[in-house]
Amino acid sequence: MISVVLVNPKYGGNVGSIARVMMNFDFKELRIVGSKEILNKEAYMMAVHAKDILNNAKFYDTFEEAIKDLDFVIATSGARGGDRNLKRVPITPKELALQLLEIEGNVGIVFGREDDGLTNEELEKCDLLVSIPTSNLYPIMNLSHAVAVILYEIYSTRVGNRFLDVNMREASRKDKDLLINKFNEFIDRNEKIPEHKKELCKIIFKRLVNRAFISGKEAWTLMSAFK
Amino acid sequence: MISVVLVNPKYGGNVGSIARVMMNFDFKELRIVGSKEILNKEAYMMAVHAKDILNNAKFYDTFEEAIKDLDFVIATSGARGGDRNLKRVPITPKELALQLLEIEGNVGIVFGREDDGLTNEELEKCDLLVSIPTSNLYPIMNLSHAVAVILYEIYSTRVGNRFLDVNMREASRKDKDLLINKFNEFIDRNEKIPEHKKELCKIIFKRLVNRAFISGKEAWTLMSAFK
Repeated sequence: MISVVLVNPKYGGNVGSIARVMMNFDFKELRIVGSKEILNKEAYMMAVHAKDILNNAKFYDTFEEAIKDLDFVIATSGARGGDRNLKRVPITPKELALQLLEIEGNVGIVFGREDDGLTNEELEKCDLLVSIPTSNLYPIMNLSHAVAVILYEIYSTRVGNRFLDVNMREASRKDKDLLINKFNEFIDRNEKIPEHKKELCKIIFKRLVNRAFISGKEAWTLMSAFK
Repeated sequence: MISVVLVNPKYGGNVGSIARVMMNFDFKELRIVGSKEILNKEAYMMAVHAKDILNNAKFYDTFEEAIKDLDFVIATSGARGGDRNLKRVPITPKELALQLLEIEGNVGIVFGREDDGLTNEELEKCDLLVSIPTSNLYPIMNLSHAVAVILYEIYSTRVGNRFLDVNMREASRKDKDLLINKFNEFIDRNEKIPEHKKELCKIIFKRLVNRAFISGKEAWTLMSAFK
C-alpha cells in the first residue's frame, strides 16, 4: 500500500485536485498533517469523482504520527544542488517508480507545504529523497502537479502498456515480422514490379511498419491484403 | 520548438496552471483556440511567475488555423479501447518523449476541452495520438494535470539526470566499482576479520553501494576511509 502524505497543505483546492489525481492513478490512502478544515467546498469541487478519497483521508497533528506505522518514507523536494543542508542524492521519479516495484510493506510519499516544502528535520526522517527535474528558471511546481507527476510515474511503471485494450496495443515484434514477410512474399510473386525496385519496396515497407505504431489488429488485417 | 495548443479551454485557472507548468518544464509557446477572455484574474493567479507565457499566448478562431504552420501535430486523448471511431493506436507519453528527441521542425501538442476532449474531426487532423495510462475507475484527468504529465515526460527524457548538480548525481559505475575495490582490498588486508566472514562482508558492502544511490562525491570521500 502506498499512501500520499501531505504536510500542512494550505489550499483546499490543491487537496481536492490531489484526491482526483490519486484516483486517476489508482491510489487510495490520503494522509494529511493538519486540520480537517482543509476539506472545504473548493476541495470537494476539485476532487470531482474522488470525494471518497477526501472522506476517508486520515488526519494527524504531527508529521511523526503520520509516518510512524510506515515501513518506507519517501520525501519529495524541489531543493537541489545549492542546499548544503541537504546532503542526500535525490533520485528521479522514474528511479523511485522502479525501486517501488521491489519494495513490500507500507510506503508513504511525502509532499511539503505549497510555499516552504519540507523542513530539514522532516527530510531527515525520510528514507529516500525524490526530486522532479525542472527548469532552473522556475523550478517550483504547483503542489498538485508535483503529486500528479510522481503518481503518474509509479502507475505507468507498474502497468506498462497493459492499460491499452488488446486491439489498441502496438503489434508484437512477431506480428510485425509476419506482416513484413507476407508483404515480401507478395512483392516476390508480383511480376509487374521491376526487379531493382523490389528490394527498395521491401525496405520501405519494413521501415513504415516499424515506425507507425501499428496495432495487432491492424497488422493482422493488413496481412490479408497480401495473401 | 514545441507549442502547447489548447482547444477551447473553459477555465482560466486551468490555463494559468498550464502556463506555470510550461515554465517549470521549459516550454514557451502557448496557443489557444478561443477568446482572450480566458485570461482572467484566476488565470494570472494560477500562473504565479509564468505570466509572460500568458501575455505572449497566441489566439486562434479555429483549430485549423492554430495548427496550420506546424510540421507535426500530436493529439492527446483519454479515450481508448471502447471508442470505435478512434482507430489509431495511442502511444504512451514516454514513447512520445522518445520520438520527439528525433523530430525536427515545429511540433504542437494538442489538448482538448475539459469536458469533451477533442472531436473526432480534430483527432483526424493530428499525426499521432498520445494517451496517459490511467485507472479504469476514473480515467479522466484534470486538464492541467494531463499537460503536466506530458511536458514532464518530454522534459525529463530530454535532460536525463543532468539537472542535478554534479556533486548530487549518482556515482558512475566506475566510481562505485572503485569504491567497492578499495573496500575489498581493505578487507583482505585486515587480519582481525575471520576468513569466512571476509567474502560475506564484501558481498554486503557491494549490495549496499549499489542500492544506496550514493553520489560521486560520497563515493570518493568514502574511498579515503579504506586506504
